[in-house]
Amino acid sequence: MSDLPTGNAAIGQSGGPTAVINQSLVGVVEGLQKGLVASGTVKQILGMRHGVRGIAKDGGDLVDLTAMPAKTLEAVAQTPSAALGSTRDKPDEEYCAQILQAAARTTSATSSISAATIPPTPAESARRAARAGYEMRCFHVPKTIDNDLKENDHTPGFASAARFVTLAHMGDALDNASLGGIKINVVMGRQAGFLTAAASLARGCRETDKDAAKRPAPHLIYVPEVPFVMDHFLHDVDRVYSALGRCQIAVSEGIRDADGNEIGPQLMRSGEVDAHGNVQLSGSGALGDGLADAVKKALTPAGGKAPRVRADTFGYLQRCWPATSSVDAMEARGVGRHAAKLAADGDAGASITIIRTSNVPGDYRSEFGRADLSAVARHARHMPEDFSDDGNNISAVFYDYCHPLVGELPTFGKL
Amino acid sequence: MSDLPTGNAAIGQSGGPTAVINQSLVGVVEGLQKGLVASGTVKQILGMRHGVRGIAKDGGDLVDLTAMPAKTLEAVAQTPSAALGSTRDKPDEEYCAQILQAAARTTSATSSISAATIPPTPAESARRAARAGYEMRCFHVPKTIDNDLKENDHTPGFASAARFVTLAHMGDALDNASLGGIKINVVMGRQAGFLTAAASLARGCRETDKDAAKRPAPHLIYVPEVPFVMDHFLHDVDRVYSALGRCQIAVSEGIRDADGNEIGPQLMRSGEVDAHGNVQLSGSGALGDGLADAVKKALTPAGGKAPRVRADTFGYLQRCWPATSSVDAMEARGVGRHAAKLAADGDAGASITIIRTSNVPGDYRSEFGRADLSAVARHARHMPEDFSDDGNNISAVFYDYCHPLVGELPTFGKL
Repeated sequence: MSDLPTGNAAIGQSGGPTAVINQSLVGVVEGLQKGLVASGTVKQILGMRHGVRGIAKDGGDLVDLTAMPAKTLEAVAQTPSAALGSTRDKPDEEYCAQILQAAARTTSATSSISAATIPPTPAESARRAARAGYEMRCFHVPKTIDNDLKENDHTPGFASAARFVTLAHMGDALDNASLGGIKINVVMGRQAGFLTAAASLARGCRETDKDAAKRPAPHLIYVPEVPFVMDHFLHDVDRVYSALGRCQIAVSEGIRDADGNEIGPQLMRSGEVDAHGNVQLSGSGALGDGLADAVKKALTPAGGKAPRVRADTFGYLQRCWPATSSVDAMEARGVGRHAAKLAADGDAGASITIIRTSNVPGDYRSEFGRADLSAVARHARHMPEDFSDDGNNISAVFYDYCHPLVGELPTFGKL
Repeated sequence: MSDLPTGNAAIGQSGGPTAVINQSLVGVVEGLQKGLVASGTVKQILGMRHGVRGIAKDGGDLVDLTAMPAKTLEAVAQTPSAALGSTRDKPDEEYCAQILQAAARTTSATSSISAATIPPTPAESARRAARAGYEMRCFHVPKTIDNDLKENDHTPGFASAARFVTLAHMGDALDNASLGGIKINVVMGRQAGFLTAAASLARGCRETDKDAAKRPAPHLIYVPEVPFVMDHFLHDVDRVYSALGRCQIAVSEGIRDADGNEIGPQLMRSGEVDAHGNVQLSGSGALGDGLADAVKKALTPAGGKAPRVRADTFGYLQRCWPATSSVDAMEARGVGRHAAKLAADGDAGASITIIRTSNVPGDYRSEFGRADLSAVARHARHMPEDFSDDGNNISAVFYDYCHPLVGELPTFGKL
């Protein structure tokens, strides 16, 4: 430990917040308080407001977390979304230079909680610092409800969002059964279908029939990893609706055709593009409404009555609902602490990872590891092929993977 | 009790389900089991599948609930949505005649859990039965998340939906604070703003500033009872966004202009009309998307960057989320039991009501009463004027009204 450079530590949050990202923030802070701050290596723990903005800004926008009391930290840990504020800035050359200069003035270690799909600022910062001959150790603490980070069994934030999606489909399936008709639920997940796949847990069973009309709801599930063919979709819905008078469908916002082109923009009016060049899919009901229109058109008999078709886009509640998966909350805290531990052990910079060590029912266990910063950045992880079935379904393999993360679910009565 | 005609009792559920409508069903059944069934007056308790459809249908679609075990009933009570299935049928002359004939064959008492905004089947059936010289006693057990039933302090189903709306705004306010921008949340409630007003509980305080930029989120709340003026709305949003860099807005799906014309259809593509002649507002993101477009257009400076504007339409989760308000669950059970009690006491037919008897903080109490069937039907209740403030806000009077129903809320930490 004595070899470590002394200085300050800065921590920021970036990208879309999750329900447990503050658990990780608190994990880092309490880990540093008990480790490098106690040993005198780290003088100050600085919270950057709105990620790198908080340090790049003239004069800085920083919160001193060095002596933040455990009681305050615990309350923050239980609070969804980014307590320091987040950012989606994608720093250019000048911005990066600003960050580095400011960091050289104020810190020697940086920790950032972010996702692979946003700019890999810790990796980039570390490279630039090294080139400049300035010793900065950067750690990346994972988070993404999309669960699409490489080198990880799963990521903090995913399990709580998955729990929301599962519970939503459980309640909504009963609502759909009450009044009948076709119900489409659009779930977040641009590149990866993990979160949409969590809808399958609402069925309460591992194995389901090849015939969608013989499955418990949701009858049909579409993810970005499986090419979406509109004709097949309409055929699937018709099959279930004809047999049951109802049909519950979970659709990922990122579904795409065989050429990889997203279905959403093809059905949408709005063409808004974000800082990363992505068309806006969340915070709009357009994909769900577009699919509902297509179903209504296809399933209305000539001269007959249109079926009842409704679409809900679950939106931001998936990532900020103030009730979490307990496994998720625990692991999110753990990855933060692990970053502080690696720093104290002299690691020169890493991304923290989650490794599943037991998946025995009732005895799920995980531990934390490390990966090089460059290993998790840029390339998103997709669902393994064996998580999907039949083009419109999710497999028992996924059930076994996801169920321990989501935790206990309510059981319902029936007449 | 000896004067009561012997026969069967039938119970059905209709209209949009709620998270606690099965509590009321179970309340009626267990009340009858212990009362009129035990005394021999009621031979059978018949559950009608999909409301009046279940009795009007050739051969009937009925479930025998007479000896349904308490354990099964308790599981059903804890289950959201209508366990018997619901209906939105609006019976015409022929349909009503069918219901009456079938009822004469199978029952002597009918209980229906429904809302005032759907056809007042119990009242209508009772009138027709009387004209036909057939003695049928009809009871209406209230439910509606819209809370728009006359003669009631509030209705079963509202508090659980309000709890969902409050929690959703609590989480979403933190999400909005993390990344900034303008967030619009569309809440159910076609005629009445009670449910949208519940967003105000997310602030955690009774009194708020006249200046929307000085209120905790949600900064702006719009309900159907207050005429919606697009220019005022855009001005309000601009004021808050300019001051804070963010703005959280709750909007009722039923907002309307000074002439009483709904804003939704004016902004929407779809013109689908339901069996009651209403344009479809729920199960579509069109109102939220339309308002978001208007805000984006108005707040984008000439040649400048559009602000980040997102809209979520909370949709059906508001009425089926599988976690309820405990006051709501208890009262929903109670109104069902009370219907069975009135029937046993010889009441010729009534709608059950909820009366608040104490609103002392920490000592909320209510009791159940009766109203004539005709008193609650047809005319929807609106929010009292003193629940609204300043055209874009909800008052402390509403806070005091709603808070005891919604129950304990989580508390959050802050850095």
